[in-house]
Amino acid sequence: MPVITLTTDFGDSDHFVGVMKGVILSIAPRCTIVDITHQVSPYEIVEGAFTISEAWRYFPKKTIHVAVVDPGVGTARRPILVEAAGHCFLGPDNGVLSMIYGREKCKVRHIHNQRFWLPERSNTFHGRDIFAPVAAHLAKGVKPAQIGPVIGDYLRVDLAKLERTAKHCWTGAVLKVDRFGNLITSFHVRDLPEIASRPVAVLAGVRSIERRVGNFAQGEFGEPVLIVGSSGYLEVAVNQGSAAKLLGCGAGAPMELTIF
Amino acid sequence: MPVITLTTDFGDSDHFVGVMKGVILSIAPRCTIVDITHQVSPYEIVEGAFTISEAWRYFPKKTIHVAVVDPGVGTARRPILVEAAGHCFLGPDNGVLSMIYGREKCKVRHIHNQRFWLPERSNTFHGRDIFAPVAAHLAKGVKPAQIGPVIGDYLRVDLAKLERTAKHCWTGAVLKVDRFGNLITSFHVRDLPEIASRPVAVLAGVRSIERRVGNFAQGEFGEPVLIVGSSGYLEVAVNQGSAAKLLGCGAGAPMELTIF
Amino acid sequence: MPVITLTTDFGDSDHFVGVMKGVILSIAPRCTIVDITHQVSPYEIVEGAFTISEAWRYFPKKTIHVAVVDPGVGTARRPILVEAAGHCFLGPDNGVLSMIYGREKCKVRHIHNQRFWLPERSNTFHGRDIFAPVAAHLAKGVKPAQIGPVIGDYLRVDLAKLERTAKHCWTGAVLKVDRFGNLITSFHVRDLPEIASRPVAVLAGVRSIERRVGNFAQGEFGEPVLIVGSSGYLEVAVNQGSAAKLLGCGAGAPMELTIF
Repeated sequence: MPVITLTTDFGDSDHFVGVMKGVILSIAPRCTIVDITHQVSPYEIVEGAFTISEAWRYFPKKTIHVAVVDPGVGTARRPILVEAAGHCFLGPDNGVLSMIYGREKCKVRHIHNQRFWLPERSNTFHGRDIFAPVAAHLAKGVKPAQIGPVIGDYLRVDLAKLERTAKHCWTGAVLKVDRFGNLITSFHVRDLPEIASRPVAVLAGVRSIERRVGNFAQGEFGEPVLIVGSSGYLEVAVNQGSAAKLLGCGAGAPMELTIF
Repeated sequence: MPVITLTTDFGDSDHFVGVMKGVILSIAPRCTIVDITHQVSPYEIVEGAFTISEAWRYFPKKTIHVAVVDPGVGTARRPILVEAAGHCFLGPDNGVLSMIYGREKCKVRHIHNQRFWLPERSNTFHGRDIFAPVAAHLAKGVKPAQIGPVIGDYLRVDLAKLERTAKHCWTGAVLKVDRFGNLITSFHVRDLPEIASRPVAVLAGVRSIERRVGNFAQGEFGEPVLIVGSSGYLEVAVNQGSAAKLLGCGAGAPMELTIF
Repeated sequence: MPVITLTTDFGDSDHFVGVMKGVILSIAPRCTIVDITHQVSPYEIVEGAFTISEAWRYFPKKTIHVAVVDPGVGTARRPILVEAAGHCFLGPDNGVLSMIYGREKCKVRHIHNQRFWLPERSNTFHGRDIFAPVAAHLAKGVKPAQIGPVIGDYLRVDLAKLERTAKHCWTGAVLKVDRFGNLITSFHVRDLPEIASRPVAVLAGVRSIERRVGNFAQGEFGEPVLIVGSSGYLEVAVNQGSAAKLLGCGAGAPMELTIF
């Protein structure tokens, strides 16, 4: 049986996530459910999009990924299914899956066939009523084509957009502050391969950070340093400290990059 | 193999939950364990009772639900087993299972047969020593009748009691503040079907809330609104905000309902 | 298939833990993964060491335990594999496994054979690149001897060391503050069997605590009491309150014990 992963902003103090798992196991008792995180900040679509885009690649083919950060639940926004790279992704059509369909060759479907939804549906909990049961049915062998038709007008948005502001300068942003206070910037070796090999500076607020390290422990305590992190993003880090606290930066904070 | 769910106030930063799972898997290696939540506020029996009462229905028949919020662990309070609606529920006899046995036709047993407990028992961790191993033995096919005798004098308490204070008025309370700051009140469509269809007002502190919405996004930012939530409870919500913060209300806060 | 447990300081708000599980399930799809905790305080090796040392014993033989609290990730510190009591333990050689190899008869190996690592490796996420895949290969039947050679120069450190300061006095420390605010001290019945049966006093800051209880509910509200906890450590507790808050003590705080 395939794996189903869950990424939400539901937190872990309510019954919401347990209920989704109950729905899944009622339909597909033998599937393996893995939590990516339920601690996406409430309503923060960018953070949810980033998290699932970092995680999915490490799962086996045929894994079904459910990503629910859904401030518009119950409105006209559609639930969608993205088929990409041998995986399936389910979520609302609000950009939470945009770092998948914006980067991979894919097919996007409108989750439309109510036969695979729960029979009674609320306007406030589509994770339970739509996404969980559809994921479970996919795990049991239902084909994506049975879930709904291919669409082309899903929400296109580039959540990690870089702007080139001068020959050697780019403006980006902090995509996420991780658990350790590292600032994960939107500068990625995929887009800017030079950051892996050339000297660079990152301007965070009024502070310019230029020292590059190969691992966190090479930084002095209290010193912000640059490192290409485990996902290929340029990160600002502090050895055993929090760069976010030291620099007063959070998710969304603008960052300027200079490549020398 | 059946599913075992866990609902506790143990948090997620200690070894407690992992130890319970180790005990379960040592006895019933093939069962599926699902966390409902371990973030029930310490010692808050009402919150634990509410959480498991909202979750269990979505699991397959024969699921075994363990609910441990147990400030009296090690005292004379008994461990009990509730058989209801094809599910089994285990917990201390302190009310944490009262929203199950108060609503469903059921049989309540005293967990008495020490043959299914861990051989060495502490006075401080019955989740490990009693509830986890008994749940695992049930999952492996031990019959409830082998666990202990049926009792009638378990703790009867109505944790979500409404009082009718006038012809059209009821007094209730906030049962729980969810992750998003929504106030889940004790007014449920099961008890008061009119709240689904008629205009109502909820008095929270000095503020009367009357606007009803069908989904969260219909509320203005910063405006408290009423919505019948995904579980059938009347909730006070704020679109992309926290009603709990806006109104300064927490779990237990009294709420007055008027049905017009 | 064996069980794999995970103990880390990765928190639960990032993709890190999900990614480790994806790596494991890609190699060993049928294994059962159990989270002990991911809430070890960042970089706190003692806390991680304590947690895994409390949990492992309750799991079935052949369980594989991964413990990653790794401020030196990417430096020369080695990844190690400890075989003890029929279980396997993986982690960095920084003391996080010292409460295993310091107490059990064991064999320690350097995780050296890169054939079982991910093909591409970062300097910042060995949980993903080394520990998760090696654990999965062990679960699939790879022998410890294939993982790397036995070593004798792993880091020896006694993280829960007691000092005898007078005939009846010992100095220890708070090993951990648990979820309920209980202070778990380093005084264990294994080392000092008298604490189970004789009157004792614990000096925490300026306050001497002497009242002993058999369960938490025997304490008065607001009264710090002593109890031998579920793991055999002497704990300072407050009935339905936090001893840590009441006494202003945290992990690492020195404690003096007198046995009368």
